[in-house]
Amino acid sequence: MRILVFNAGSSSLKFGVFDLSGAALGQVQECLRGTLDRFSPEGCELKLSGQTEGRAAPRDLAEAAAHVPDLLAKAGLDRFDAIAHRIAHGGERFDRATRLDGSTLDQIRALTPLAPLHNPANLAAVEMAQRLWPDLPQWGVFDTAFHLANPARATTYAVPETWRAAGLRRYGFHGTSHKYVAMRTAEALQTPLREIRLVSLHLGNGASACAIAGGQSVDSSMGLTPLEGLVMGTRSGDVDPGLFGFLHRQMGLNAAEVEDALYRESGLLALAGVADMREVEARAASGDAAAQLAINIYAYRARKYVGAYAAAMGGLDALVFTGGIGENSASMRRRICDGLEFLGLRLDDDRNTTVDLDNRAAPQIQAYGARVNVLVTQTAEQLMIAQEVAEAMRAAQPMPKRRLPVAVSARHVHLDRAAVDALFGAGYDLTPARPLRQKGHWAAEERVALEGPKGRLEHVAILGPLRPHTQVEVSRTDSFALGLDAPVRQSGDIDGTPRIRLHGPAGAYDTTGLMVAARHIHMSADDARAWALADGDMVDVSLDQTARGLTFTHVLVRVSDKALTEMHIDTDEANAAGIVGAVDGEIMGDVAITARHA
Amino acid sequence: MRILVFNAGSSSLKFGVFDLSGAALGQVQECLRGTLDRFSPEGCELKLSGQTEGRAAPRDLAEAAAHVPDLLAKAGLDRFDAIAHRIAHGGERFDRATRLDGSTLDQIRALTPLAPLHNPANLAAVEMAQRLWPDLPQWGVFDTAFHLANPARATTYAVPETWRAAGLRRYGFHGTSHKYVAMRTAEALQTPLREIRLVSLHLGNGASACAIAGGQSVDSSMGLTPLEGLVMGTRSGDVDPGLFGFLHRQMGLNAAEVEDALYRESGLLALAGVADMREVEARAASGDAAAQLAINIYAYRARKYVGAYAAAMGGLDALVFTGGIGENSASMRRRICDGLEFLGLRLDDDRNTTVDLDNRAAPQIQAYGARVNVLVTQTAEQLMIAQEVAEAMRAAQPMPKRRLPVAVSARHVHLDRAAVDALFGAGYDLTPARPLRQKGHWAAEERVALEGPKGRLEHVAILGPLRPHTQVEVSRTDSFALGLDAPVRQSGDIDGTPRIRLHGPAGAYDTTGLMVAARHIHMSADDARAWALADGDMVDVSLDQTARGLTFTHVLVRVSDKALTEMHIDTDEANAAGIVGAVDGEIMGDVAITARHA
Repeated sequence: MRILVFNAGSSSLKFGVFDLSGAALGQVQECLRGTLDRFSPEGCELKLSGQTEGRAAPRDLAEAAAHVPDLLAKAGLDRFDAIAHRIAHGGERFDRATRLDGSTLDQIRALTPLAPLHNPANLAAVEMAQRLWPDLPQWGVFDTAFHLANPARATTYAVPETWRAAGLRRYGFHGTSHKYVAMRTAEALQTPLREIRLVSLHLGNGASACAIAGGQSVDSSMGLTPLEGLVMGTRSGDVDPGLFGFLHRQMGLNAAEVEDALYRESGLLALAGVADMREVEARAASGDAAAQLAINIYAYRARKYVGAYAAAMGGLDALVFTGGIGENSASMRRRICDGLEFLGLRLDDDRNTTVDLDNRAAPQIQAYGARVNVLVTQTAEQLMIAQEVAEAMRAAQPMPKRRLPVAVSARHVHLDRAAVDALFGAGYDLTPARPLRQKGHWAAEERVALEGPKGRLEHVAILGPLRPHTQVEVSRTDSFALGLDAPVRQSGDIDGTPRIRLHGPAGAYDTTGLMVAARHIHMSADDARAWALADGDMVDVSLDQTARGLTFTHVLVRVSDKALTEMHIDTDEANAAGIVGAVDGEIMGDVAITARHA
Repeated sequence: MRILVFNAGSSSLKFGVFDLSGAALGQVQECLRGTLDRFSPEGCELKLSGQTEGRAAPRDLAEAAAHVPDLLAKAGLDRFDAIAHRIAHGGERFDRATRLDGSTLDQIRALTPLAPLHNPANLAAVEMAQRLWPDLPQWGVFDTAFHLANPARATTYAVPETWRAAGLRRYGFHGTSHKYVAMRTAEALQTPLREIRLVSLHLGNGASACAIAGGQSVDSSMGLTPLEGLVMGTRSGDVDPGLFGFLHRQMGLNAAEVEDALYRESGLLALAGVADMREVEARAASGDAAAQLAINIYAYRARKYVGAYAAAMGGLDALVFTGGIGENSASMRRRICDGLEFLGLRLDDDRNTTVDLDNRAAPQIQAYGARVNVLVTQTAEQLMIAQEVAEAMRAAQPMPKRRLPVAVSARHVHLDRAAVDALFGAGYDLTPARPLRQKGHWAAEERVALEGPKGRLEHVAILGPLRPHTQVEVSRTDSFALGLDAPVRQSGDIDGTPRIRLHGPAGAYDTTGLMVAARHIHMSADDARAWALADGDMVDVSLDQTARGLTFTHVLVRVSDKALTEMHIDTDEANAAGIVGAVDGEIMGDVAITARHA
């Protein structure tokens, strides 16, 4: 499959051509990469596959787009399967590669207030590509999409409801870059991405940090706009919102003037007098105190985000640097990492100073024996965009109907031997009272009580047989009645889950293992084969027979020979879907790409 | 010493009377505490020493202040040594308890733009107290003072220079509270405060986090204003600065309207419909999804600050909760702490749920064997204010002149045996070339080179004799030439210092121990006795004989029988002071209180 990728800005047009033979990053081949940059009445600068080719005629985006077919033809590239466009802002709607047609383009146009500079340029490129290649499918890949998996606690500002209803929330950007380097990191570590708690630091002219856990973005330093977060070339990053009032009262500045200066006259430029980190570092080394302070602030803010995201994820397994500064400044990498030894993070100085990024390398620079892996890699947003579109096109092939029953799990516990001994007496055997649908599983006659800092839940069901570790599955509402923060987890993934106290007739038992069970599908190997799914895939399941029909996204597929195919959801989810009695669901076309490759 | 403390707000006046018999927190006795609250045309509410006394006549701050002498007389309290006032904003000038006179009051008045609501009320209380007690000294203690020790990397926004020149920087608030609970924590742990890396979470109606290391505040979540940072009762905490522009374009709101809503209609109130955490928790337990989300956001943001500050300090030794929510919500403490096990932090559930704060208790609630101590304590800002003023009054007593010579240290290394073996050959003995002023110390004939990720420094002096661990002391400018972040440390305090490579004729040697040496005073035991100073005191030293005279604040005193009294500074400091040749300095009156008690 060959895909032509466009990334249009207000003063530049980037494009690339990629051949994709399979689903892994290593199976993508770059055929050509081009940039038409710095549009002006005298033309623009042209680069092809990294080499400067000198000046070209195009004076604006429209002329640049019209010029691309010639450049492609000269390189012998004239047949494509699809055209992919980078779109800056996908709002709350676009969480994956999306076919661009009249309806989706209208929806993207409606998001312009969220990205007043970027989305119009992206849309202009789509229109020109439609005119140039009217028969090819056009796809959009969104810079915000990866972060739509962020939980509400990370995306919600504590501001009035009317503002939030108008779209004021954290979106995050650089999503394609963070997703690519996360997948590249998993490849380099030969570990499934969903088993890695990762911080990605994209440090370019724009800069952002992203926390990635369970294969998904869980938090990101850019928010509503690309202003929030880290210090950047000319952008401020985090500031006190009180600064608008202060500057108005003290200097008579209005909000538009302040915002403009926060975008264009802040960051390294404001602190050191120059936006380019290479120049800032040179000045600092020669004793320039302003440049020294700029470097200190830059590193300090990045280091604090790494610590904050470790806290958000309950620890850190890997840190990856990308973007111009992340790729090229060994001393900035050292500054950010120094002081993070308490996380088990330590650099190897020789590896750090001799990083070589030719040919999509992702060298590891942690010290021998350090618990946290540290990597450096170039980002490859265009490659990732091509990859996502290819994957979406494959998934859009016609499929057999894939219907399966949906079971609702009320709160329950799975006990281990030690728990039964403590709760019911040494050597006690639980009494199976009722068989469950999965073979060999049953509900016990006995019950237990759960206790947290805020309250108790009585008569909680016990499911057998015994397990190697006790697991307590409650709904989100239950967790607030208990006063405990139960994380959403896949069954069996009890690492770092909170402690809770169980009560039985023979005594109390304190244990970790509290969770809100993540929705999942048990699937027989036969069904998986027939439905072209694999263990670990993430699918969407639509419930169309219920009073409050909805689609559950990101449902994990667990394939086993012994399983009966069935989806499990909890009582909160059942209520949300208005489920009464037995219902079926249907697995939809798309498979989330991170899961398949992770 | 008996001190009357005032804390005046726009709608309330708090006061307290404290007897101070010595310098420790345990030697302060509260005689009376009173609140005149919710001024209205019908009068106000009166509380005395925690008990509600019903309504009282005063309708505003002036009437309330005039009413205080009666209340004091009824309690048998009519003689005081001083009156202390809480002042909200001390700007960059007021870093300690300060005598209030015409000149200092003018300076405080000039800070009104930074605290337009609070400073005028505080100043009004000062004027009324001056009229009521014209013969008593009036002192001010500033809510920002504790944070003035924050390094520039923590206080500087990446915004235009003209804005920063107008006073736009991070100040931090709740300083008196954070300082008190930090000292109370050190007392409870029976460990000097300067050896504890501590995060203080003040979670009341206003809320802030503070990182405390080396006995000083090093970062704080409130910034220019009390809007920045954590989610609060009605304040937003951190938001994207782009929200002003978005709300203007989408909803036509101007900056003043947005700011007002961020202060009064945001935070828990916006998320859950109610600002009081007790009510939010009750609603969440009964299934209210908005209240559940509010709690999740509140805890998540606090947990991220704990992680960020651990990264800022290179680790965490203790966490202390205070303020209404911090003191009373066991489930919020659990939520914030869960997921921080990677820091070595784990709660004991029984201790956490049975916290009892009577009588200034500071119970520890960490689990047995957990590395990080977790404490809960009531804050006592008025007590701390009284304490600071008493200490300042003692320090203001006349003192003998305390003059001492100042020595300038250029970059140098102290080597251990392993370093000498690696750099000069096994068993090599360094050659003393020149004696130093401190007895038994010398500069060696040999030199070494230093190497960092950015560059090399050649011919660096070696000072003998050998030490148990190699230590590399450079100036701040040197550290940028090397490309390494050298922390400011007291000599010998090498825990967690960065690694650096040394080169000698026999080979290279990698070692930790890189630092910018903190200025300090070596002092003979005789001088310390004569000058009423103790090992560990922090003093100010004024250099008045130099071209660029200045006062070095927070200089550590190290007392030893063998020492010759002498102050050590590095080359950057010497340049800043314009030192040429031999100079003297003079120790000033004040001793910083945290150091003495830490």
